[in-house]
Amino acid sequence: MAIITLTTDFGHKDHFVGAVKGTILTNLPDAYIVDISHAISPFNIQECAYILKNAYTSFPKGTVHIVGVDSELSPENQHLVVQVDGHYFVSSNNGVMSLITSEISPEKIVEIRLPNADPGSFPVLNVFVQVACHIARGGKLEVVGKPFDELRELREFEPRILNEGKSISGNVIYIDNYGNVVTNIQKSLFEAYRNGRSFEINARTTKIKEVHHSYNGIINYDLDRSQRKGPGDALALFNSAGYMELAIFKSDLNSVGGASSLLGLNYRDTVTVNFL
Amino acid sequence: MAIITLTTDFGHKDHFVGAVKGTILTNLPDAYIVDISHAISPFNIQECAYILKNAYTSFPKGTVHIVGVDSELSPENQHLVVQVDGHYFVSSNNGVMSLITSEISPEKIVEIRLPNADPGSFPVLNVFVQVACHIARGGKLEVVGKPFDELRELREFEPRILNEGKSISGNVIYIDNYGNVVTNIQKSLFEAYRNGRSFEINARTTKIKEVHHSYNGIINYDLDRSQRKGPGDALALFNSAGYMELAIFKSDLNSVGGASSLLGLNYRDTVTVNFL
Amino acid sequence: MAIITLTTDFGHKDHFVGAVKGTILTNLPDAYIVDISHAISPFNIQECAYILKNAYTSFPKGTVHIVGVDSELSPENQHLVVQVDGHYFVSSNNGVMSLITSEISPEKIVEIRLPNADPGSFPVLNVFVQVACHIARGGKLEVVGKPFDELRELREFEPRILNEGKSISGNVIYIDNYGNVVTNIQKSLFEAYRNGRSFEINARTTKIKEVHHSYNGIINYDLDRSQRKGPGDALALFNSAGYMELAIFKSDLNSVGGASSLLGLNYRDTVTVNFL
Repeated sequence: MAIITLTTDFGHKDHFVGAVKGTILTNLPDAYIVDISHAISPFNIQECAYILKNAYTSFPKGTVHIVGVDSELSPENQHLVVQVDGHYFVSSNNGVMSLITSEISPEKIVEIRLPNADPGSFPVLNVFVQVACHIARGGKLEVVGKPFDELRELREFEPRILNEGKSISGNVIYIDNYGNVVTNIQKSLFEAYRNGRSFEINARTTKIKEVHHSYNGIINYDLDRSQRKGPGDALALFNSAGYMELAIFKSDLNSVGGASSLLGLNYRDTVTVNFL
Repeated sequence: MAIITLTTDFGHKDHFVGAVKGTILTNLPDAYIVDISHAISPFNIQECAYILKNAYTSFPKGTVHIVGVDSELSPENQHLVVQVDGHYFVSSNNGVMSLITSEISPEKIVEIRLPNADPGSFPVLNVFVQVACHIARGGKLEVVGKPFDELRELREFEPRILNEGKSISGNVIYIDNYGNVVTNIQKSLFEAYRNGRSFEINARTTKIKEVHHSYNGIINYDLDRSQRKGPGDALALFNSAGYMELAIFKSDLNSVGGASSLLGLNYRDTVTVNFL
Repeated sequence: MAIITLTTDFGHKDHFVGAVKGTILTNLPDAYIVDISHAISPFNIQECAYILKNAYTSFPKGTVHIVGVDSELSPENQHLVVQVDGHYFVSSNNGVMSLITSEISPEKIVEIRLPNADPGSFPVLNVFVQVACHIARGGKLEVVGKPFDELRELREFEPRILNEGKSISGNVIYIDNYGNVVTNIQKSLFEAYRNGRSFEINARTTKIKEVHHSYNGIINYDLDRSQRKGPGDALALFNSAGYMELAIFKSDLNSVGGASSLLGLNYRDTVTVNFL
């Protein structure tokens, strides 16, 4: 059984996802198709990369991942297969793959050349599915493409080290379903500069002096319930993906609000850690 | 083939669902994963219980259900496997299971003890998947936990019988995709007190004197179309889950509105049945 | 392995989809269930037909498609199985099937008669699943129904040819996830009347003189980036389903807007092609 995942900005209403799945099953009846996300904001490469990066590693090696965001073929947006970390990504050269491969070198990259395929306005259906099924069947990359080495680099926000290592200045890179605000400050970077010092995290008017390992890390269960912190309180933690995240305990964006709305933080806003 | 279902408040955009599915397939390649819902309102236990209760019974006995709502481990929110009605639920002790087991006694409950697992901020990924796959492979509950008997009770709204059985006072417990308003008045209770009497259902300013078996029960197909009731008319029925529901025939929340918006009914609002 | 697809207006939150999938797997453990869409606007027959028509053809012949929109049984809304183009549709006689079969004659139609099934308010669960599993197992249509020949005709918007073939007047029939506006003007009709002439597409205040084959067809990649058209520019193309579509290059309805919001076009609005 071969696993093929889908990460797209197609949304959940249109026929796009259904048509892609039908075509996969027509080509490879025993494919196991898994949706990673179809709710990427249209053409949002950073968002796509964040989601894909934190999902693909959970899948078995050999999984084929179709990336259906900004995938129209152009002289500047080639169709690629990127083999990295034992996984295969069928994607256009839109920058997602450079973000995925920023920490791991790709094992092989080919530019897709299918003589009889017309990508048109729906290249995922017309090209990517055929290539993904070929790979899922154990086919060689060389059969569908030729070597390629010009992966488009996207400048990702990188945290900056300031004041001779006394501060880390990062940015919001993602806001999740709960309104929790994910920054680009990774635990490894934080620990590398901390040196056992106390610290203060500043995000607009919010100041936080602890980083937890779980959301309920702010709760002291030894206290009586009436004396505890709880729903509505802001906290920082390193999330399951290893990034510093600012959160509101038990938040709900549609009712009480989440960190993004309550702390007034948006995509790209600055979050600073000052070591004391 | 083992079926594992997912009921979470993860939403459809983030990497959470994809990561969980990938991990399941890495552990148990022939798992059949089914999404029940990922759109539970964050941390909403009642909503989760209503959806899960009305979905799980359709699955074959032996199905493993992962409940990913409010699942962080704490001294007051243990990780459990609850075996009930031939199904296995991997859930925290957040109250969902007491609502599920309110009418059926659980066959077995264990508190999960995995010596080498760190639940962190993503216990569904780090603990629940491993346990679910163990059970789906036919493993014993005793291997992953120890007996537990302190299922957290949640006070659910219960309808009250008033005026010596002349009235039933219930509450709105769920609002569905069409805006239809589900109450906690079950058909069995209604019939037990009705004794063949006429009745009037009151919900704010709406008064309804019939309960139907289907939405189009209000339509008299013998009449000419111009004389019939139709789209926009309010009605009551016992829905497929057995609960009294107030509905607008052929409603659409995003255009003409549904029962919730047109009748002004929200979660927890009172709906009264008066027998005449 | 038998494929059963689902196209409904159930949404993604309620227990409906989960209950249907559980029942399918209880009846037919090796069914491969594929979601086409659960986000059809409630009771919207045209929308359902557009999505289903453009998705079903990608599936292998023999696939069974459950259509769960406006499916309550009534004297005027019979439950049907329609065999067309080698596919099986289990649907009520709500008009969807007449739109699907507008260009291909159905091979067989039966009206479902299951003596022991009570459709109630959830006919997809109580009737359609059982019928779909019967067909997916290779069962004959005659076993579950009797011949039927009164497919309800829905008047679909049809483009009109005006001024002795100098104009085609069409309508918006669908707005997709990107806000792109799909008209009912098919490429075949356009080409049949064009006769090599230049043309102007008019939609409210927008005038467009080219129809592309892909969204990036408006970009001249030979120009320097600063001189090119790009994100935010309006264009027309024949989409992958063969319909004329008005689009904004790289649009996002939730941020910069899409063709529907930027060009002010809604469902049913007029789009005219004038040949010059």
